Amino acid sequence: MSDSAFLKDFHAVAAIGATGGNGVERQAATPEDGLTRAWFADWAVERGWPVRVDGMGNMFALLEWAPGEPFVFIGSHLDSQPLAGRFDGAYGVIAALHAAATIEDQVETSGERPAYNLAVVNWFNEEGARFAPSVMGSSVYAGLMDQEDMLAVQDLQGISVRDALSDIGFLGSDERPDAVGYAEVHIEQGRRLEREQLALGVVDSSWYTQKLDIEVLGEQSHTGATAMADRHDALLGAAKIVQMVHEVTADFAEEAIVSSVGRLNVEPNSPIVVARRVHLVADLRSGDPDIVAAAREKLVRDIGTLAEDQGLSINVRDFDVRPIQHFPEDGVELAEKVAARLGLGIRRTQTMAGHDSVAMNNIVPSVMLFVPSVDGVSHCEREFTNDEDMVSGLHALTEIAAEMVNGALTSQSQSN
Amino acid sequence: MSDSAFLKDFHAVAAIGATGGNGVERQAATPEDGLTRAWFADWAVERGWPVRVDGMGNMFALLEWAPGEPFVFIGSHLDSQPLAGRFDGAYGVIAALHAAATIEDQVETSGERPAYNLAVVNWFNEEGARFAPSVMGSSVYAGLMDQEDMLAVQDLQGISVRDALSDIGFLGSDERPDAVGYAEVHIEQGRRLEREQLALGVVDSSWYTQKLDIEVLGEQSHTGATAMADRHDALLGAAKIVQMVHEVTADFAEEAIVSSVGRLNVEPNSPIVVARRVHLVADLRSGDPDIVAAAREKLVRDIGTLAEDQGLSINVRDFDVRPIQHFPEDGVELAEKVAARLGLGIRRTQTMAGHDSVAMNNIVPSVMLFVPSVDGVSHCEREFTNDEDMVSGLHALTEIAAEMVNGALTSQSQSN
Repeated sequence: MSDSAFLKDFHAVAAIGATGGNGVERQAATPEDGLTRAWFADWAVERGWPVRVDGMGNMFALLEWAPGEPFVFIGSHLDSQPLAGRFDGAYGVIAALHAAATIEDQVETSGERPAYNLAVVNWFNEEGARFAPSVMGSSVYAGLMDQEDMLAVQDLQGISVRDALSDIGFLGSDERPDAVGYAEVHIEQGRRLEREQLALGVVDSSWYTQKLDIEVLGEQSHTGATAMADRHDALLGAAKIVQMVHEVTADFAEEAIVSSVGRLNVEPNSPIVVARRVHLVADLRSGDPDIVAAAREKLVRDIGTLAEDQGLSINVRDFDVRPIQHFPEDGVELAEKVAARLGLGIRRTQTMAGHDSVAMNNIVPSVMLFVPSVDGVSHCEREFTNDEDMVSGLHALTEIAAEMVNGALTSQSQSN
Repeated sequence: MSDSAFLKDFHAVAAIGATGGNGVERQAATPEDGLTRAWFADWAVERGWPVRVDGMGNMFALLEWAPGEPFVFIGSHLDSQPLAGRFDGAYGVIAALHAAATIEDQVETSGERPAYNLAVVNWFNEEGARFAPSVMGSSVYAGLMDQEDMLAVQDLQGISVRDALSDIGFLGSDERPDAVGYAEVHIEQGRRLEREQLALGVVDSSWYTQKLDIEVLGEQSHTGATAMADRHDALLGAAKIVQMVHEVTADFAEEAIVSSVGRLNVEPNSPIVVARRVHLVADLRSGDPDIVAAAREKLVRDIGTLAEDQGLSINVRDFDVRPIQHFPEDGVELAEKVAARLGLGIRRTQTMAGHDSVAMNNIVPSVMLFVPSVDGVSHCEREFTNDEDMVSGLHALTEIAAEMVNGALTSQSQSN
C-alpha cells in the first residue's frame, strides 16, 4: 500500500461525523460511529480479511497465515469525544489497516510464513464520553472490566451500551481471537515531541489516574422566596468543590499533577429553584501515585469540612483507579531500533492519558507509539497532526508489527 | 360547596404525579400536567361550565350570568416544579373552582344577576422549570410576552412548547374571555404569616426581580493530558461565578436581597474533557430596585475581571426583568375587610416570588392572598399547609370574588 492511499483513506474517514470546525463527532455506538465501523468492515472484507465483532462491540479484521497460532493485534479506536479532533483514535486504526496490508504484501512476496497471525482491531468506546468508563472495549478484552456490567452502563438518556450497540448493528457474538502482542500508534496528547522536534515517542509507562465520583445533596427550595440563611444549595457546594479540585494541584510541583472536573449535572436544574442535588466527577492524574493519594486525601478532608459548614450531605467515592503501567523494555527498544532504521528521531515518554494499549499491556507485551500533535491539544476540533508525521508513524508501526508477527518481541518478552 | 368537598378534591389532585416524598411532579405540558388539566375540565363540565383553551394552553371555565360583560378571573396554575410540593399553584386553582361553585349557588339562591361574569383559570406554565421564562401563560394573556415566541421556546430535549402542548391535547384555539379583575390565593413562600400566626396575607407589592443569562466560553481539551497552565476551563470559571452570585448578597442588609444560580449546563460534560462552554442563569431579587442594580453592576464587573484572568470569554445578558408592581389599594382594603368579617388575622406583605397575579395586575385590578406555609418552604416535597389554613383562604377568596363580580372593586378602581 502507498502512503498516498493511507492519507486518502484517513481524510475520507474524517468526513464521517465531520463538524463545522474541522473536527469530528462520533461518540461510541452512535450512528456516526456505526458509519466508521461499516467503513472499517468494508475495507477489510474488500481485502479478503474476515471481520469478527465480539459481544463488546470490538471489531477484529483477521490476517491468518499460521492456523492455530495467536494474533498480534494492531489498532486503536474509531469513536470520538463530542466536538473532537479527527486524529485521536482514527489515525491509529487506519494506520493499522495500511500496515497490515503492507505486511500482507511482504509475506506474499517473500513466501515466508510468519510465526503469528495479525489482527487489525477497532476497540469499542475508548473515549468514555457517552458511556463511562473510558477504554471500555479493550479493558473487557483484557479482563479488567466485566462485559455484562459494561453492557448495562447507560448514557445520560438512559440508553444502555447493549441497546446502543444493537441499534447500530454492532453487538456481535463472534469468538475473540487470542492476542500474543499489541502495537498502537496515536497522536501525542502533550507538547514534548513538538518542542523537541522529534517524529516519534515510545511510551515506557502510563500515569497513575483515578476519579472521584462526588454527589452533593442539599435542599430544593425557591430561589426567589427563600432567605439566603435558610438555603442548603447543592450547586454552591459543588462550585466550591470544582475550585478545590483545581486548586489542589498548586500544592505540588508544576506539571506534577493534573486535576479537574469535566462532568457536572444539576437537579432539578431550574432557573428559579435552589439545587437539590449535584453530581460531578473529578479526574486526578500524576506520574507519582503518592501525589494523587495526597491530593485525594486533602480533597476528601476539605469536602468534609465544606459539607459541615454548608449543611450539605456529600458522598465521595473512588472509582476508575488505574495504577502506573510499565511497558516492556524490549518493546521500547524495538521501537527505538525501528526508528533508527527509518532515520526518525524518537524519545521515551509517559502517557498521562489512558489508551487501549495500557489495558492490553496487562495481558500481552504492548508497544505504544506517539506522533507529534500541534500545540499538544486533543479532545477538541483544532487537534492537528501533519501528513508527514502521520506517514512516519505508519512506517514505524508497519516495521514494528512485521517484527512482532515474526516473533521478535514476543519470544524475547517470554524469556524476560 | 362544602369545605370537606374542597379538601377531598385538593387531596385527590395531589395524587396526580405524586412523588415518594409526599410531593408532586407535574411540569408544564407533561402527561402529568395533562392529567390535572383533564381533571379540571371534567370538574367544570360536570358543573355545567363551558371550558375554553386558548392558543397558549391557558384554561378558562366560564360562569356566564351577564352576556356581553367581561369576566372576573380567579385561579392560579396546576403545573409544578420537578419534585415539588402539592400546594404551590394547585391549591389556588382548586380553591377557585370551589369558590366559583359557592358563588354560583349564592347567585341562584338570591336570584340577583351579578354585574360581571366569573371565570376559573388554570394558567399555563407558571413555574418555568421545563420551559423558561416562568409565569408564561398569564404573561401572554396580559400582553407582556409574545405568544409565538413562547410557543417556540424549547425544553432541554429540544421539544417546543407548541409540540408539548399539542402532544397532551391542550394547544387550544378558543377565544380568550375578557378580564375585568383577578383574584388568586396561594401559599406564602416565606415565614412571615407563620411567625406572626396570621391566617392571611394580602400582597401590596412584588419584589423587583431580574435574571442574568451567563455564557462562559473556554477551550475544550483533555483533562488527563493538558497542563494546568494551558487550560481555559469554562466550568472552573462558571464555578467562580456561582460563588460570586451567592456572595454578592453579603454586601447588603440581611434579607434585603436574594441571589442564586439554579440552572447550569456543561458542554461537552464528559468526565475526561475540560469544559468548552457552560451556560448558567442567575436570579436576583429585592424589594429595592437599586439594590438589584448595585449587585448586578458588581457581578458584571467581577465577571469581566474573571474572564480576563482566566482567558475565558464570558457573555452576560439581562433578561426577565420584572419591576416592582403595586397592587391596587382598594383590592388590599377589600381583602382586609373580608378577613375582618371572617374573623381571620391578616397582614400586608410583599411577594418575593413571581405569580400569575403579578402579570394580571398589569392589565386589571388584582388581589393576591397568601395562606401560611410551614417553615416557609416551597418548590420542594416537604412544602406543607394545613387543612384549616387552606379552608380559611378558600373562604376569603370566595367572599372577595363575590364582591368583585358585583363590581365592588372594579368600579372603585376605575374611579381612582
